[in-house]
Amino acid sequence: MPETIPPDSVGLVEPETVHFDRPLRLSCGQTLNEYDLVIETYGELNTEKNNGVLICHALSGHHHAAGYHTMEDRKPGWWDNFIGPGKPLDTNHFFVVSLNNLGGCHGSTGPISINPQTGKLYGSDFPILTVEDWVESQARLADHLGIRQWAAVVGGSLGGMQTLYWSMAYPERLRHAVVIASAPKLSAQNIAFNEVARQAIRSDENFRDGQYLEEGTLPKSGLGLARMVGHITYLSDDAMGQKFGRELKSGEYSFDYGAQFQVESYLRYQGEHFSGSFDANTYLLMTRALDYFDPARKFNDDLAQALSPAKAHFLLVSFTTDWRFSPERSREITDALLKAGKQVSYMEVDAPQGHDAFLMNIPRYVNAISGYMKRVAVECKEAAV
Amino acid sequence: MPETIPPDSVGLVEPETVHFDRPLRLSCGQTLNEYDLVIETYGELNTEKNNGVLICHALSGHHHAAGYHTMEDRKPGWWDNFIGPGKPLDTNHFFVVSLNNLGGCHGSTGPISINPQTGKLYGSDFPILTVEDWVESQARLADHLGIRQWAAVVGGSLGGMQTLYWSMAYPERLRHAVVIASAPKLSAQNIAFNEVARQAIRSDENFRDGQYLEEGTLPKSGLGLARMVGHITYLSDDAMGQKFGRELKSGEYSFDYGAQFQVESYLRYQGEHFSGSFDANTYLLMTRALDYFDPARKFNDDLAQALSPAKAHFLLVSFTTDWRFSPERSREITDALLKAGKQVSYMEVDAPQGHDAFLMNIPRYVNAISGYMKRVAVECKEAAV
Repeated sequence: MPETIPPDSVGLVEPETVHFDRPLRLSCGQTLNEYDLVIETYGELNTEKNNGVLICHALSGHHHAAGYHTMEDRKPGWWDNFIGPGKPLDTNHFFVVSLNNLGGCHGSTGPISINPQTGKLYGSDFPILTVEDWVESQARLADHLGIRQWAAVVGGSLGGMQTLYWSMAYPERLRHAVVIASAPKLSAQNIAFNEVARQAIRSDENFRDGQYLEEGTLPKSGLGLARMVGHITYLSDDAMGQKFGRELKSGEYSFDYGAQFQVESYLRYQGEHFSGSFDANTYLLMTRALDYFDPARKFNDDLAQALSPAKAHFLLVSFTTDWRFSPERSREITDALLKAGKQVSYMEVDAPQGHDAFLMNIPRYVNAISGYMKRVAVECKEAAV
Repeated sequence: MPETIPPDSVGLVEPETVHFDRPLRLSCGQTLNEYDLVIETYGELNTEKNNGVLICHALSGHHHAAGYHTMEDRKPGWWDNFIGPGKPLDTNHFFVVSLNNLGGCHGSTGPISINPQTGKLYGSDFPILTVEDWVESQARLADHLGIRQWAAVVGGSLGGMQTLYWSMAYPERLRHAVVIASAPKLSAQNIAFNEVARQAIRSDENFRDGQYLEEGTLPKSGLGLARMVGHITYLSDDAMGQKFGRELKSGEYSFDYGAQFQVESYLRYQGEHFSGSFDANTYLLMTRALDYFDPARKFNDDLAQALSPAKAHFLLVSFTTDWRFSPERSREITDALLKAGKQVSYMEVDAPQGHDAFLMNIPRYVNAISGYMKRVAVECKEAAV
């Protein structure tokens, strides 16, 4: 709980639900006739409406990116260290928009919503979505907000994929694309980890073919396992070593299968905590969206060609110990952008934290985003004059 | 099925069960009053009994390392490419001994054996074992075979840990230690993956607290998941990429959770196949033995001091893309051995296959083992004269 709200916080914020009733045709062929997106905004949209910054979230993310919902909150939003007055995404200059993606479980229409056609919970009947579908729904959100062109679209990991797709699908609608710790498509190993997570969920006896809410059960152990696997891939071997090493809770081997190494209790806690606060069907569809993202696929695997319509300036950031989306993956994007003749800055940040580094206060990283966004803010002002 | 047995095969082999009735006190404090070890031997023990080579197996290994049990076998033993006449562990010169470790599920006493004290299956009552216990039981096997001193003890992965421990516990009983793709102890990340595997098994509704055989069930989906996780860590990202890439079974996304990427069907197959042929309690205890192995622990984390009693000559081999036990882990052992003043050769083999490389026919690797063992064979002959 923040005894007082820190001065560089966006303060108390309130989510808002935006209803859309124009049918959205999805990549899978199905159509959502109507849907909600829950959003938060920080800062003010200027008169010229040219200072909007869209935040795209990662696998288990949501709209609550900054500030506090109540004075009792233990923690601020998930990217609070980047969003606020004087912070890299400076709310003195930008109108920052954060949403819960379609298919999510934090208020936007998804598996835990009522299907208006049946009056029942969607559950596993909720269609599988793609990054393309998300970008389409985000474009409609921009229309709703009266934002013709974002100053920047920003995202890490799966959020970086959405950012990348924005630049291809709506070249005129963003001036800058900030793609952090991302990849142009998953590798076989990435898909393999997702598959383990899905099998863990789907083989949980309480999953009930995805209709667990209707049946009053929860696939908690499966979802917990999925999160444990995910968590290992978010941290580097080094980071885990530094954080836990081989430390024992009791100091002695207990010759049983209880959590006796610190890393075991940590993972179990992460799994249990997550499985109590996230929806398993949402987890499934988010991992599938990751698997499916492959914008070069329609272009004979030529990423440069896929990116050729883009008009944004790009900033790409990767982290040395990220083995989920290694620096090599960001360099693939950078190389394709350069080949396609785009403006691109690329930065590889030395960081021991692995993939999770993109969420953290790492000075060189913070300064880079901060410096880049300062220039974007100046552009907004200049264009407004 | 081999239509004819290849000329460099050890041919048809038959496992043998050796009964031990001297009580074995285990690291956990419990005692096994009697137990069986199932073994296979290839080649002949010479009159001087100085040409014995012990093979220590890895996590899911067993005694059947070379040759065929019947003419109908589809595949030979798991390390057949290394064991046979003219092969690196040349059965024209060596008496090669391979066993199923205690706690295993291929014939040696373990969770699927009858507990003589209760007349019931051990199941999860079978004690948790350590690498130290295995080496002790292997030393008694050497006594039984009349082998006072092994020409070499050889092992990859968990087998390498047993080899390493042999050199410390019984310095006089082996002349050479060949430690392949191994580590002096697990990292936090290694333990984390083991913990996921164990949680997958233990949370399977059919696990029944480990008494699944008594209750007529099998935790197949949990064990399958555990194997899937393991399998990802045995292959390198590159190897998976080369083997499967993002190839689809049907050529099109199917927007469901069926196995549509080749890597998904491969993993599911591996999981299903394994869970039909391996015991879940054995898998649990083998992963715990891995977690617990840490010979430097009693020496203030000074591995050189732990290794100081060793008298063997060492050959260490690691593989560039092995991220389960990376070359760095083998270098830790090598550095400690050098610091302790031991004779050690170290080789880092360029190989794309990841941890699994230790099982494969990689010319530089095969030649190194072959060359090293030729010298060992000459020593055996010279000592015999």
